[in-house]
Amino acid sequence: MQEGGDDIQALIGALARLPGLGPRSARRIVLSLIGRKPGQMAQLSTLMARVAENARPCARCGNVSDSEICEICVDPSRQTGELCVVEDVADLWALERGRAFRGRYHVLGGTLSALDDIGPDDLGIPRLLARIKAEAVTEVILALNATVEGQTTAHYIADALPAQLTITGLAQGVPIGGELDYLDDGTITAALRARRRL
Amino acid sequence: MQEGGDDIQALIGALARLPGLGPRSARRIVLSLIGRKPGQMAQLSTLMARVAENARPCARCGNVSDSEICEICVDPSRQTGELCVVEDVADLWALERGRAFRGRYHVLGGTLSALDDIGPDDLGIPRLLARIKAEAVTEVILALNATVEGQTTAHYIADALPAQLTITGLAQGVPIGGELDYLDDGTITAALRARRRL
Repeated sequence: MQEGGDDIQALIGALARLPGLGPRSARRIVLSLIGRKPGQMAQLSTLMARVAENARPCARCGNVSDSEICEICVDPSRQTGELCVVEDVADLWALERGRAFRGRYHVLGGTLSALDDIGPDDLGIPRLLARIKAEAVTEVILALNATVEGQTTAHYIADALPAQLTITGLAQGVPIGGELDYLDDGTITAALRARRRL
Repeated sequence: MQEGGDDIQALIGALARLPGLGPRSARRIVLSLIGRKPGQMAQLSTLMARVAENARPCARCGNVSDSEICEICVDPSRQTGELCVVEDVADLWALERGRAFRGRYHVLGGTLSALDDIGPDDLGIPRLLARIKAEAVTEVILALNATVEGQTTAHYIADALPAQLTITGLAQGVPIGGELDYLDDGTITAALRARRRL
């Protein structure tokens, strides 16, 4: 038999295609939702419909938002002249959780990739350059992932930026709580090169 | 800032409470859904609303179904006189995936537990006994988990069943593909005791 009828089967199938889930975890989620207090699943469904209806990329920075311009871009206290360039929205959220950065963001939505045929125009780099000019940006922080693609993209953007801007990148080194014995050689070398006086 | 507004935040929170998910995987799922083709998230929401509306336990066996009586219980070809007693719906689905059993099921919804104050009435064992009488059952297969609670419950049910019934349990032994070196002592002992002539 199909597991619990067509709709339940379709729901399991749809959930199983989400990142990090598979058929087994999708079945477990559906059974747990069915077994809960009635209303909880309907509530989740309503919430999902609302997000599906309203979530859109911020027209200015590319952050996910439920309005035309996201709350970071409309907040005047965040017009510090610092612009942090990230690969995707998950990175922006990660930086926001750190609460260390009070400026604004720009989400590229990916990295340059010759293999996948993603060039500067696909990432909206001309739009980024226009924005930097329009918004009186003084420092651009290239907070791209420490991968080959991320660093290639960072170098490309750094070359394209006007010369009077301060251009920075995230420090590389030993992560907090990290043990040297478990770190890769590249990280240890980078941390040693960038050593600082205590 | 909140990650992407109140609704998105609430959706992440609701997903993070599902079994096997946490805040990180919930964020990843929401971002992936927002980034997909529009309509896919709305579709998932609709599906979930339909299941929330229609899914209910089968009045006869406790399987999850979108009708009063599940499709296994209404299928006359499955009235074989064999009744397979399982702990929960996930176990029923697992047995159905094996396609080896062509009789009907009875879902207990848990196991006897003195600690959690779950007694025979909470598991509907009187209802199970009434059903066995009403449906001309000839064999009861106690397919409960091979845990202490599962086996305690199996013994309790076996004692409560009429003496003329055939009462069986799943065979215990080496799982298919299992390597002796990685099996626990209990399984090896059980497999050796129940050895069979080749």
